[in-house]
Amino acid sequence: MKAAVYLAHPRPGSFNHALADAVAAELGSRGVQVVTHDLYAEGFDPLLPADGTETVRAADRTESLRADDGPDDAWTARHRAELATLDALVFVHPNWWGMPPAVLTGWVQRVLAPGVAYKLDTADGEPVGLLRAGRALVLNTSDTPAEREEREFGDPLQRIWAACVLPYVGVTDVRRHVFRTVSDSTDGERTAWLGEARGLAAALVS
Amino acid sequence: MKAAVYLAHPRPGSFNHALADAVAAELGSRGVQVVTHDLYAEGFDPLLPADGTETVRAADRTESLRADDGPDDAWTARHRAELATLDALVFVHPNWWGMPPAVLTGWVQRVLAPGVAYKLDTADGEPVGLLRAGRALVLNTSDTPAEREEREFGDPLQRIWAACVLPYVGVTDVRRHVFRTVSDSTDGERTAWLGEARGLAAALVS
Repeated sequence: MKAAVYLAHPRPGSFNHALADAVAAELGSRGVQVVTHDLYAEGFDPLLPADGTETVRAADRTESLRADDGPDDAWTARHRAELATLDALVFVHPNWWGMPPAVLTGWVQRVLAPGVAYKLDTADGEPVGLLRAGRALVLNTSDTPAEREEREFGDPLQRIWAACVLPYVGVTDVRRHVFRTVSDSTDGERTAWLGEARGLAAALVS
Repeated sequence: MKAAVYLAHPRPGSFNHALADAVAAELGSRGVQVVTHDLYAEGFDPLLPADGTETVRAADRTESLRADDGPDDAWTARHRAELATLDALVFVHPNWWGMPPAVLTGWVQRVLAPGVAYKLDTADGEPVGLLRAGRALVLNTSDTPAEREEREFGDPLQRIWAACVLPYVGVTDVRRHVFRTVSDSTDGERTAWLGEARGLAAALVS
């Protein structure tokens, strides 16, 4: 089994980094082949180039996305090729304004291209997911209490990952956990959370 | 009155560009001072640097955002200074996986910094919005029919803009309209949509 951990936090030493390390260690200890992508450290350019938005259906008629990012984008090509070999995906990132950090938003928008991650070839427009990976784990950090997140903000990250993105590309088993509230957490809480993250990673590949 | 139009689409000639142009023209014709920011054309770097995520409350304890992006970021400083002078905001972008394009995600995460766009100084953590602008219009394009968007995807962009982002910074009057489905639209539909966008812009500043 092969899995990737995608980490989106700019600061080395962040708790997100610790979560990603814990997950990668747990997966490795279980015989899973793990690749970790620290998207900030890799220097990923999250901006889809203009020729990545031309139509797949009718020239100059759509505002949506397509596979052809142009030949200059070796990074995106490598990520797409690797993605096709994965059995499980893990995303680790903070909740910033109800969205992932822009570097991960860009990863989704550039790497999960039509023809690579899904195809639209049915009459009713229902997509067919193309990824081999059937399962994913999303680990988030937040400084907002759960009750307030649900009442006031509606937790858009849940819909983004579990409805918009992952099922669309064929990942039907989507698990998510939010560690909160991070800013006032104690060392003991953080240690416990890292253990919890390891447990979730273990369950993902069991 | 002063307003800004923030456009996030990589391709010149896109329908998003036409929407932004129509809105800017309408506002200008009504005596509003308009600035338009084509975020792709400006070459904005959407990635928050590592020192932008240190804590405002307890050192090395949070994964969230803060104002201090460092002195090298003249672009962000200019956007923040201008934002403080605006009475109305308009955002024009496609729905990509339930999120704005990464360039606009990054604009939110970098420009709307604590101490600039909001402050957290109350005991219960409720933010106080600092923006002068009290109203905003969000115009989106989509290739997903409205019924399917609501049923299958849950329209996270509505929550992102109308719950997570704009009220948090003091913008209480949030209006949003989605033009759909763009990929199979006719010239006549697009012309009508541009007129509709002008009407929404006019209403925003009336």
